[in-house]
Amino acid sequence: MINQGEQVKKINKWMMDHEQELILQLQQMIQEPSVQLNESGIQKKVAQSLKNLGFKVDMWEPGGTKLTEHDAFISSRENFEGSPNVVGVLKGTGGGKSIVLNGHVDVVPEGDITDWDENPFAGSLKEGCIYGRGATDMKGGNVAMLFALQAIKSLAIPMKGDVVFHSVIEEESGGAGTLAAILKGYTADAALIPEPTNMKIFPKQQGSMWFRLLIKGKSAHGGMSYEGVNAIVKTQKVLTVLEQLEKIRNARVTDPLYSQAPIPLPINVGVIEGGGWPSSVPDLVKVEGRIGFSDEETVKEVQAEFQEAIRTLEDADDWFKQHPVDVEWYGARWLPGSIDADHAFMNILTDQFEQVIGHSPQIEAAPWGTDGGLLTAVGNIPSVVFGPGVTKMAHQANEYIEIKNVRQCAEVIAGTLIKWCNVEEEKA
Amino acid sequence: MINQGEQVKKINKWMMDHEQELILQLQQMIQEPSVQLNESGIQKKVAQSLKNLGFKVDMWEPGGTKLTEHDAFISSRENFEGSPNVVGVLKGTGGGKSIVLNGHVDVVPEGDITDWDENPFAGSLKEGCIYGRGATDMKGGNVAMLFALQAIKSLAIPMKGDVVFHSVIEEESGGAGTLAAILKGYTADAALIPEPTNMKIFPKQQGSMWFRLLIKGKSAHGGMSYEGVNAIVKTQKVLTVLEQLEKIRNARVTDPLYSQAPIPLPINVGVIEGGGWPSSVPDLVKVEGRIGFSDEETVKEVQAEFQEAIRTLEDADDWFKQHPVDVEWYGARWLPGSIDADHAFMNILTDQFEQVIGHSPQIEAAPWGTDGGLLTAVGNIPSVVFGPGVTKMAHQANEYIEIKNVRQCAEVIAGTLIKWCNVEEEKA
Repeated sequence: MINQGEQVKKINKWMMDHEQELILQLQQMIQEPSVQLNESGIQKKVAQSLKNLGFKVDMWEPGGTKLTEHDAFISSRENFEGSPNVVGVLKGTGGGKSIVLNGHVDVVPEGDITDWDENPFAGSLKEGCIYGRGATDMKGGNVAMLFALQAIKSLAIPMKGDVVFHSVIEEESGGAGTLAAILKGYTADAALIPEPTNMKIFPKQQGSMWFRLLIKGKSAHGGMSYEGVNAIVKTQKVLTVLEQLEKIRNARVTDPLYSQAPIPLPINVGVIEGGGWPSSVPDLVKVEGRIGFSDEETVKEVQAEFQEAIRTLEDADDWFKQHPVDVEWYGARWLPGSIDADHAFMNILTDQFEQVIGHSPQIEAAPWGTDGGLLTAVGNIPSVVFGPGVTKMAHQANEYIEIKNVRQCAEVIAGTLIKWCNVEEEKA
Repeated sequence: MINQGEQVKKINKWMMDHEQELILQLQQMIQEPSVQLNESGIQKKVAQSLKNLGFKVDMWEPGGTKLTEHDAFISSRENFEGSPNVVGVLKGTGGGKSIVLNGHVDVVPEGDITDWDENPFAGSLKEGCIYGRGATDMKGGNVAMLFALQAIKSLAIPMKGDVVFHSVIEEESGGAGTLAAILKGYTADAALIPEPTNMKIFPKQQGSMWFRLLIKGKSAHGGMSYEGVNAIVKTQKVLTVLEQLEKIRNARVTDPLYSQAPIPLPINVGVIEGGGWPSSVPDLVKVEGRIGFSDEETVKEVQAEFQEAIRTLEDADDWFKQHPVDVEWYGARWLPGSIDADHAFMNILTDQFEQVIGHSPQIEAAPWGTDGGLLTAVGNIPSVVFGPGVTKMAHQANEYIEIKNVRQCAEVIAGTLIKWCNVEEEKA
């Protein structure tokens, strides 16, 4: 038996020796432009990598009513033909804790190509960084996981628990890929999702969902505006209610993981649209936004509180009484994910981070949701998000990732897997 | 010489005897679908009618830098090819006051055809009303003027002053037709515009102009909304400033003509648009609206006061100081029109109204602008608006006008012309 310090060094040496392979593998992943409907190329690559690592691989196109009629199912798609999910299972020798490693292969579109300095699907290497769509979100994290597994295999380190590798589609559009994997029974004792956290550890992830409000007015000529009811003016009252609701909801948040966030669970008004003619009193305004929520509340509770806040407008204003604001829950929803702060997996991950990086990690609640929400809420798997990507570059032009972070994250993951999957390991 | 009472009766009898002609003439006008770019058909008809009445007719396509570089020129068009203006002049026998009769032939588009019960360009007759696009705005008024002139000619009533008949294009889009007529020298001692007033007399018409505001924010992920500046939230402060400005401006209005209007000079916010994604903090909101103004203030004064009000946002808010709200004056502008309340023409018009209708007219300030603004401000012609149309039906589906009102308006106009153009007429 080697002691932990020696093992960290051995893994580090292997990673340093193989850094060129890591770079090449990440570049090849970026060169697969895996936007929605175009995920099969990269999934074949991931499936092959997993097979090479000894995993038993399941590759399938999600579907069926068990998935599409599930409460947590959200998708803009009718079906997932041509967009396979991949799950690989590496059975342990027995007696150890199992883990889900979850990463999505879908990327958001490249946007305006002229905003990019390089081809977004070239995977260019510049000054220690790899550039391209998906570099940060989250092919860097995916490669870190694969590389951790390669190191463990190459160094012939024994593993008692199972490793369940989710390579999923549709994270950017509602999480149907991860939901399909969970519903197919691919679960474990804990889950790690290396989304771009700048190497912070997120034992909680904020949930969020979209709302749409329709605020009604009454049309009139602008020169006789007093004969109408201006929906834009009425909307101000609605926005005030949302501000008050945000204050009330956030005053309840006491979790120290949120102490860094001025507003732990923001309500964001993101879109407004109303009226069609400067000289007419507008009779309709549409407001769209997102409300953040914690793992301590259910979707139904959050929706009920929100709707009641909007309803209170009717108490003080006859117009709203006669013309209630329409509330619609539409489009996207991300469930909150979590793991107990003192969960054994958290302790191992934090300890490994310190061993590899040399200082304590920043541990916070994530201000955004990931597929960790589905793993927690539907799969009942304690889930933590920790990854190498540059948070602010996700979905941006000139998205990039630092190679050093990918490697270090791979080292932390490798050490964490070895400890977690060998809970009965002999003491050094 | 006949006395006034007899003359009113004679004109009334002629009008009653010829009501079928009036209906036919109005139907034929409506059957010319004179939307922008399609005005030549109706103008040929009007030109012929004026010639038949003995007018010397000038028909021309407006243009030239004297027009297009004039301060008051506003148009969405590059040129007016195929869209002729028509002006007819009927010289009097000399020694009388002259008058401009001004009516526009352009109509707004019919809109969604399925909102109409009948073909909008059929001119259907139902229960004493003629239906169709332009019936109210303002072919009914135009026919009333032509019919008044026909009565005067048929009854061989002598006229000392000149009648200058403006049949103009482009009223709905900035007034380039009337401006062109004024700049060509077609002016007079007073002007009457029979826009749809429901038979009210408007010795003042509210001016108005459009503004566009761009309110800036700072983008951020909605889950970290506190890292951004929400342009929709900032817009609330801007709207509050506009509400205050409306109060301040209207507190200054003492003219009794505005006593019927709860807000004599409204500021109307008509359009709002901002943000693009519910989960992002929006960094830009566009607000468009119109500000009403009176003939007692200049365009420049109104703009300066408005801009200063918006600027005060910078005093109390560093964000606005660093990112001032953009103010743009764009698109449409209607100058205020007016005639002194005790002007001789007003007295004659009011008197004739009482003779024909049997009671006093409602005299108010118009809540909207007409080409009377250009006649007043550029042509220096005291201008009054009085017409038969149904105000609220302008620009609507199933636009209609009551035939009785068109006829009565024609009677009032005929009597008014006879009095005004014969100021030296012998007493009965």
